[in-house]
Parts: sequence; C-alpha cells; structure tokens
Amino acid sequence: MREPILLTPGPLTTSLATKTAMLTDWGSWDSRFNALTASVCQDLLAIAGGERSHVCVPLQGSGTFAVEAAVANLVPRDGKLLVLVNGAYGKRMAQIAQYLGRDHSLYVTADDAPPCPAELAARLRDDPAITHVGLIHCETSTGILNPLAELAAVAAAAGRRLIVDAMSSFAALPIDVAALGVDALIASSNKCLEGVPGMGFVIADRQRLLASQGNSHSLSLDLLAQYDYLQRTGQWRFTPPTHVLAALRAALDQYHAEGGQPARLARYAANGARLRDALCAGGLRPLLPASLQAPIIFTFHAPDHPDYQFQTFYQAVREQGFVLYPGKLTEQETFRVGCIGAIDQAEIEQAAHAILSTLRRLGWLPAVH
Amino acid sequence: MREPILLTPGPLTTSLATKTAMLTDWGSWDSRFNALTASVCQDLLAIAGGERSHVCVPLQGSGTFAVEAAVANLVPRDGKLLVLVNGAYGKRMAQIAQYLGRDHSLYVTADDAPPCPAELAARLRDDPAITHVGLIHCETSTGILNPLAELAAVAAAAGRRLIVDAMSSFAALPIDVAALGVDALIASSNKCLEGVPGMGFVIADRQRLLASQGNSHSLSLDLLAQYDYLQRTGQWRFTPPTHVLAALRAALDQYHAEGGQPARLARYAANGARLRDALCAGGLRPLLPASLQAPIIFTFHAPDHPDYQFQTFYQAVREQGFVLYPGKLTEQETFRVGCIGAIDQAEIEQAAHAILSTLRRLGWLPAVH
Ligand SMILES: Cc1ncc(COP(=O)(O)O)c(C=O)c1O
Ligand SMILES: Cc1ncc(COP(=O)(O)O)c(C=O)c1O
Repeated sequence: MREPILLTPGPLTTSLATKTAMLTDWGSWDSRFNALTASVCQDLLAIAGGERSHVCVPLQGSGTFAVEAAVANLVPRDGKLLVLVNGAYGKRMAQIAQYLGRDHSLYVTADDAPPCPAELAARLRDDPAITHVGLIHCETSTGILNPLAELAAVAAAAGRRLIVDAMSSFAALPIDVAALGVDALIASSNKCLEGVPGMGFVIADRQRLLASQGNSHSLSLDLLAQYDYLQRTGQWRFTPPTHVLAALRAALDQYHAEGGQPARLARYAANGARLRDALCAGGLRPLLPASLQAPIIFTFHAPDHPDYQFQTFYQAVREQGFVLYPGKLTEQETFRVGCIGAIDQAEIEQAAHAILSTLRRLGWLPAVH
Repeated sequence: MREPILLTPGPLTTSLATKTAMLTDWGSWDSRFNALTASVCQDLLAIAGGERSHVCVPLQGSGTFAVEAAVANLVPRDGKLLVLVNGAYGKRMAQIAQYLGRDHSLYVTADDAPPCPAELAARLRDDPAITHVGLIHCETSTGILNPLAELAAVAAAAGRRLIVDAMSSFAALPIDVAALGVDALIASSNKCLEGVPGMGFVIADRQRLLASQGNSHSLSLDLLAQYDYLQRTGQWRFTPPTHVLAALRAALDQYHAEGGQPARLARYAANGARLRDALCAGGLRPLLPASLQAPIIFTFHAPDHPDYQFQTFYQAVREQGFVLYPGKLTEQETFRVGCIGAIDQAEIEQAAHAILSTLRRLGWLPAVH
C-alpha cells in the first residue's frame, strides 16, 4: 500500500523534494550550514513582514519549546500576561506562564467563540498590571480563527504588548508583525511551511529581545543567548537539527515556487471548502460556522449514533490510506480533519469519500442523505 | 564531488539506510508511530542496562535540552549539585544549575586531568549539603575519558546521587546504569548511535523520576510530565521529531546488526588508533596521553608554525572531502578530529592523509619527519 496521507495539523504530508533534502549530512560548524541557517531565517522573517523591525530566532525542539522561550524572554519577570483562551493551546500558554512563575490571568471564551475586542479593551483598562497579551492566532484545537488584527489594535491602543502563537497559521494566513506591532510571533517548521518537525522559531521585535537580558529561566530556551550567538558566529548555540533545517530550506523553495503566502492560502482554502462541502453534503456537521473557520483544520461532530467509536473509525479510514486526527474537546464527541500539507483537492476528495463511505459501511451514517 | 565525510562529534556521517528512513511521513498520533517510540526507548534502556531499575524518556531538542531537563527534574529545588569540570560540557552543566537557581559547586581539574576519586570523596565528606554529583563521561571538548566507575563508587559510598552526561560515549563505551547506581544518564540521537540530530533522552532511575513532581522549572523540559504522558498514551507530549526518531530506529537496527556496543567500540577504537598513529607519525602531537583518551574524538596541538590558521587548514581539508572540528581550548591552539560515525579505517586513513598532506602543502608541517 502507498504511504497514508496525513490529514493532521503537523506533522503532515510533506513533498518528496522536502524529504530527500534530508539525504545529506551537514557539519554544524560548516560555513555552508551557517548559510543555510541564515537563508532560512531571512525567509521566515520576510514571510512575517519583520525585516526592518524584527529578528528570526530558530530554536531546537517542538513548537511548544519556542512558545515557552518567547514568553520567558519577552514577558519580564515582573510583567503580567493576559492569555486569551478558547482552546488547548491558549491553556498551554497559560500553563507556561504558571511554570515560569509569571503573573498572568485568563480571558476565556467558549471553544467556538473568538475573544471580543471590546471585552479585551475593558479587561486591559481594568487591570493596569497587565503588560502583555497572549493570543493563539488559529486555535488548532478546533480550527477557529481568532481576530488577530482587531485584538492587536486594542492591545496597541492600550499600550500593551502582544505575543502571538501562530503555529498553525504562519505562512498560510497573512501576518505583518511590523504593522501589527507584535513583540513575538511563534511558529514551527512542520505546519503550513510543510517542513518536517524538529524546530520552532520566534519572530521577535529586535529592541524587545535585546532588552530581555536576564529574563530567561532556562539555558536551552534562552532566546536572547541563541540570537546573540547566531549573530556572532552564524551558528546555533547547541547542535542544530541539521536535516530538519535542510528540509525546511527545501520546503521554503517550494513555497516560493508555488507563489508564497497568497498561493498557499488559496490552495488550503480550496482544500478546506471542498472538505467542508463534501462532508456536510454527506450528513456531517462542522463545529464552527464558516465565518469563524480558518482553512487549516476542521472539527466535525461525531455522527450521532450510539455505537460510534473514534478508534474504530480512525483505523478503518487509515486502511483507506488517510490519517485523521482526534477531537480535542472535552464536552463533545468530535473528530478533526486537516487540509494542510503537500496535498490538494484530489487528496481531499478521496479523503472525504473514504470518511463518508467508512461511516456508512459501519452503519453510523445513513446511506443516503 | 562526493559528500564530505564529517570527522565531527555529531552531527556526524550517518549511513544511507539511516537517512532514507526519513523518507516517510509519520502521524504523531498513529499507533505505528507509538510503537516506533516504544521500541526505540526499549532499546536505549537495554543499551544502558537499565531495564529493571530505570526508564528512558525521550526529549525533543538537542542534547543540552535533555541535560537541563535531567538536572531540573532530578536535583530537587533544595538539593546541591557538585559538578566535576574539566571542559566545556562540565561548565555547561554548572551553567544550567545557575539558570535553575540550584545550589551548586565545582570541582575543576585541568583540561587534560580527570577528576580524582579520592579528592571527590574528600569534597563530599567536607560538604554534606551536596546531594548530587554531575559528571561528563567523555568530555568532548578534548576527548578525555573520565573514570565513571571509580567516581560512581565514591558517590555511592558517600550516599550521593549521580547525574552522568554520556552524550558522546553512550552506545560505544560500556555503561551499566543499574550497577553504577546512576540517577540520570543523558545522551542524544546523533553521536555514537549514529542517528541524525533532533532529540535527546534521559535514562532515569524510575523511583527518583517518580519522586520529582514539582521540580521542573519548565513545561517543555518537564521530564516527569513527558514520562507520565508517554506511559498513559504512548505518545510524546508535544510534536515529536518524527523523521529523526525513524532515523534513530534505523540506526539502532544497524547498531544491533553490527554487534552492539562491543562491536561499535571495537570499530571506533580501531579508527582512533589508526588516526592517532598516522597523525603522530606525521609529526602532530595529541593533547592527551593514550591512557586518558576516549576513542571518540582526538585533540591535536596545532602545528608549531607562526602562520598556522585553523580556518585555512579547515577549508583546505574540506576541499579534500573531510570536515574537521575546531579546538575548544582557550589557552592552546588545537584542532579536533572525530573517529565516530558511519566510517571505518578506510576513511580514517584517507582523512589522515588529507590532513598531513594539506599541512605540508601549506608549509606548516615539515615535508619529511
Ligand atoms: C496553535 C498551536 N500552538 C502550539 C502548538 C504546539 O506545537 P508542538 O506540538 O510542535 O509543540 C500547536 C501544535 O499543534 C498549535 O497548533
Ligand atoms: C559531552 C557532551 N555534553 C553535551 C553536549 C551538548 O549536546 P548538544 O550540542 O546536542 O546540545 C555535547 C555535544 O557535543 C557533548 O559532547
């Protein structure tokens, strides 16, 4: 059987060109590898619109490591972080603040409700201790798109700084860190950039980062030290994930060849619309209205049948060659389907067919709808 | 030109079989990936001799991340760590304790002097506050082998616990964590296991790890949380470096096929002896006497010529197809040559020839010696 297609929000299906870029061993001290690092960072910075104001600091580890590094470095030890929470990744940012011993509070909305800019303004007015606002751009737990521009404007008007977890939106949705006045924007190699997992990065406001001396709780996650060392030597402080970086370079080349962010968004939006239309036509119900949905990952309610079991469903669809993703909601039975990665409408069409025919065969969805 | 051979202490030259294992995308939630994780951890634990007493906890990031996680989790917040320092990695462990705010002290010896067991015993006797001893097994800064068994016996006799950074020795030198009574042993994918970089792991005493609740300063580096989650779900807490793990699985298969630790040590020892003999015969001087030298990486004094420049030497040898490593000593001009990776005596022979002929051509070493 062919390799299954991953309909997951990263790790995801990457192209063969991206994977074959890992067939070379790189010396981490070699000038060619330094050039690779520099070119990747430069491209990431350009995608974020931060060339004049920001720097790109790559970090070993998964995306969470980069989020923790960003919060630790950019929220000073006597700062206070207000985290906007409508899913698991918002909760995770709050948990990071907890580990760090940083003062923080939460503005929680329902899984299917974006935070309200007016309410944010009120909360910032009511608590002058808040120095930073933490926001998840696309909350991957459901696929909801939070209104970055509106919330950034509120934070800026209130003189507060913004930390954006753009893990699952970066490179697909347009983001301009300079225009939005973002202190730190965090993403990783293995989502909309379509690289393989193993590194994250922070697009950090240069001045803010340079002023962060002494903030980090951790040697490994000290973003300023990583930046300083890169500036001085061209090298990562500790052994870099050389093959992962080479794959990301190849993935960026393909990204540019495809037409960059607008083209990637167009492909994902087409994938997402096709997926949603096909599954809705088959009788499944999406969690979110189209107006709140990012074209990254979709949450569907499980079919309303007493025997439904995600594991059985998952295995049966996997046997058809597609890997789904479990739901992440505690109160409702759901499953998720990603529409990102090196896939287009042909794969989405086949996946939708596999999902629906499997559910019908299992008797969990009426045969004709 | 063919790919250069990396004579570096990781990232190093890996086999094509290891690299081609990265040509598959894995779903991080899939049971096949969980099985991959479990089988890798099981093998690593067996190599360490810890199957009954210890657990293997993999961690995203470079080796330093795993060292930091081990120190943070296993040295309690009111503990005190005595770090044995004779090179950069000992200093790094002390720096980690500093970041963590853990009380610590240093027992420093010269770059070419292993710590003395009797002196360690005296220091432990004199400072009852010390709860843990931190040791670098092979100090990669020079290639010196520190006497693990003797130092472990002293720590055990004094009722103190031991944390061993075995980054560059694991899987080549024999280590039995149960017999030595090691609390935590740290290594990574990309040294003597001959995998690619992107993950470390900690072989931790199960009881000690389970008792470490609340010690971690960091969400990302919380070893106990990572272990708990793996136990409960079979999955890593955050996105794993899927391709790196698949490469490590392939590398472990080759390790077993080669004959495991004794065979790997024999190959490296033969590589090392050949390298040392050839370069000494050519007129270069090793930093360390053979009795202190681990068969991992060798430090040589730079040729005694006023015009010598490492960069020029490095580039010229690189053009012959070999990547060397700079020295890490501050007081003496040195360079390093690794003898680990998917290489054997043929490559070492050619490398020694390239090194010597380059230095002669540059006029920095007499033509006939
Ligand atoms: C929005 C968001 N934040 C953070 C993360 C965490 O990233 P990682 O799993 O690489 O640590 C993810 C991963 O899916 C995510 O989607
Ligand atoms: C003994 C030792 N400890 C720690 C490290 C750090 O590992 P990394 O560079 O993967 O963070 C190394 C790397 O060479 C090492 O040799």
